[in-house]
Amino acid sequence: MSNPYGPNPHDYLTNTNKFELIESTLREGEQFANAFFTTEKKIEIAKALDDFGVDYIELTSPAASEQSRKDCVAICKLGLKAKILTHIRCHMDDARLAVETGVEGVDVVIGTSQFLRTYSHGKDMNYITQSAIEVIEFVKSKGIEIRFSSEDSFRSDIVDLLNIYKTVDKIGVNRVGIADTVGCANPRQVYDLVKTLKSVVSCDIECHFHNDTGCAIANAYTALEAGAKLIDVSVLGIGERNGITPLGALMARMITADREYVLSKYKLHKLRELENLVADAVQVNVPFNNPITGFCAFTHKAGIHAKAILANPSTYEILNPSDFGLTRYIHFANRLTGWNAIKSRVDQLNLLLTDEQVKEVTHKIKLLGDVRQLNIDDVDSIIKDYHNEVSTPQLTPASNGTPFMEGSEEPEAKKAKTA
Amino acid sequence: MSNPYGPNPHDYLTNTNKFELIESTLREGEQFANAFFTTEKKIEIAKALDDFGVDYIELTSPAASEQSRKDCVAICKLGLKAKILTHIRCHMDDARLAVETGVEGVDVVIGTSQFLRTYSHGKDMNYITQSAIEVIEFVKSKGIEIRFSSEDSFRSDIVDLLNIYKTVDKIGVNRVGIADTVGCANPRQVYDLVKTLKSVVSCDIECHFHNDTGCAIANAYTALEAGAKLIDVSVLGIGERNGITPLGALMARMITADREYVLSKYKLHKLRELENLVADAVQVNVPFNNPITGFCAFTHKAGIHAKAILANPSTYEILNPSDFGLTRYIHFANRLTGWNAIKSRVDQLNLLLTDEQVKEVTHKIKLLGDVRQLNIDDVDSIIKDYHNEVSTPQLTPASNGTPFMEGSEEPEAKKAKTA
Repeated sequence: MSNPYGPNPHDYLTNTNKFELIESTLREGEQFANAFFTTEKKIEIAKALDDFGVDYIELTSPAASEQSRKDCVAICKLGLKAKILTHIRCHMDDARLAVETGVEGVDVVIGTSQFLRTYSHGKDMNYITQSAIEVIEFVKSKGIEIRFSSEDSFRSDIVDLLNIYKTVDKIGVNRVGIADTVGCANPRQVYDLVKTLKSVVSCDIECHFHNDTGCAIANAYTALEAGAKLIDVSVLGIGERNGITPLGALMARMITADREYVLSKYKLHKLRELENLVADAVQVNVPFNNPITGFCAFTHKAGIHAKAILANPSTYEILNPSDFGLTRYIHFANRLTGWNAIKSRVDQLNLLLTDEQVKEVTHKIKLLGDVRQLNIDDVDSIIKDYHNEVSTPQLTPASNGTPFMEGSEEPEAKKAKTA
Repeated sequence: MSNPYGPNPHDYLTNTNKFELIESTLREGEQFANAFFTTEKKIEIAKALDDFGVDYIELTSPAASEQSRKDCVAICKLGLKAKILTHIRCHMDDARLAVETGVEGVDVVIGTSQFLRTYSHGKDMNYITQSAIEVIEFVKSKGIEIRFSSEDSFRSDIVDLLNIYKTVDKIGVNRVGIADTVGCANPRQVYDLVKTLKSVVSCDIECHFHNDTGCAIANAYTALEAGAKLIDVSVLGIGERNGITPLGALMARMITADREYVLSKYKLHKLRELENLVADAVQVNVPFNNPITGFCAFTHKAGIHAKAILANPSTYEILNPSDFGLTRYIHFANRLTGWNAIKSRVDQLNLLLTDEQVKEVTHKIKLLGDVRQLNIDDVDSIIKDYHNEVSTPQLTPASNGTPFMEGSEEPEAKKAKTA
């Protein structure tokens, strides 16, 4: 059966089956409020990212501080498989520092929106274009990869944008970048802009999405559909404000598109370890609702879900937890539980009950679940007590009159489950 | 100036400027692994949601357990402005219970995907359609609003889907629902399905998106663009697995589309309180990177960002923190800081320094920031010490030779900032 969530074979623009990752935990992530990475921690993170399989690792500008420059040099010397990039302002002083660090690529950025032109650097498009050409030709002359990106692209004039992208493409940049610096873009805007840009340049397109309005993952996916090739990510999405496209969540998104490609390139079972490493380094908890690694990402609770999951996990799972070295969990100790989930627990406990008996004990569990929060021990005790009662009738003559039979509910309520 | 992120006036499909919210913390949210709501807590949450301004409040099925039924009755009696809904399986037993609770609307759901038809209820489309008609006509006969939703809509046969939606629309449902039950949908699929459905039915369209692959917010926005009218949300997105579209993040997304509409309907300054109420009830932390209320959502760190934010917050903010009763924060105590951020701190401290002096003290701060994590006291001490030195030169004749002047860096490094 073909995968309806995979790339459409008739969609000649899509790169969802051949994307690359620019991992920016050590650049964008360093701009996260809590981040302070020592040299040792940067090296540990860089090695872990490389082991995971990211294509590029982007580092803070050597112009940011002297230690930033030294760390950049140190990481370049590690001999990682991932290509090392640094990220600089569109300025010759920064470019001169960058090319001396040993990086394999330089990511240049300049603000092109009216906001940034007025309140940040104060330059016009002519000046921006001239600076870009000078920096690009200089970096290229050193045999180093070069990317040119606008900043705040979605609030920039489309004619200005296409003009400068066309110019830098002609002088031979390796890629151009679109950046949703303020996190305002929505998927259909992204599709339109990337598709339009694709018709203007012949180089690769890289995209960078902030998550202020919660669309950074979807925007990344849609950009790949429109022909972008590279996505900027960071572990747990850490970055300025509430951050950018998170590496883990993007893996969740992309594996639904092309499982083989993702599994062949990235060590997904290392994801949790990588997230814990970075979470510890910046002193945050992995969000409870994080895709894949959130504590409940593979926990099924409502009875009707549990029933189907037990029959075939794909009914309520688009992701396979074992792809990430994780397992699913059927939450059966609650009032929303159903008899199929309890039956599965009865089996796990190696007890024998008929379906009718399982329905009766399920009703008993739901009665207690209505009164208070249950844990697994509570449920197991109820099941075991019930099992003792029904399996030793000669010792408990009153077993037909046990409390769970005396409820006033409709019979339906006993087997009711929520969707 | 028109808002380029607002609804396109030429886009006759869009409902981004007239959407409604179906708040499901007390239904979908009860399926969250950690959720156990007492009657008192349910009432407290229902009142807080009503005060916030949600249009509908959806409750767990009265068929789930006897207490669930009683709680449903109790909440209906509160006399809230929001309409109260309950959510049931497509079954007459559940429907009979539901209409006796006092709810103003019933949300009916049935699995239509091959997965669910095989592994969940085991019924064919004919049976599903007949059940739907019976339940819908019964609920309508009681004068109660009725919604019919498919489950796992994005993995259902499109012809089956359109057939059943067309049928239930003809017999007069108030709305039809599309549910991405497994969280597999992406924005362009959502746009296509909603737009197609819009051409088939005349009733309203409601959408329900799970967040397994991180697209629940973007999918909701795109559904509204395609003509859906109502979005299911829960506080912090709590629900099965890692949950659904979060109320807060959707507010962030929608306020960029139509600020006036959102501010006129919803009490955004109550959002943090509402999130804390629910987070406490289910014993989770608000994620560090939550849109709007995450601790760093309005924290700006890199020097180049801080500079522009100080000149005009819109340069790096699409959301205005004061709309949510919050404030922005310029993080200046770190090695990525810039002299504009430090100048602003110098002003706050009521000290007088020239721009050149601020650049010098900034360099000194960056030197220490390279060695260890800084806090505000560290920076203030450095600024005050420096100020004492330069403002009382007669007492410190060596002030021109202080350590920060002895660095071997290029002058550029002193004012360098990362983007």
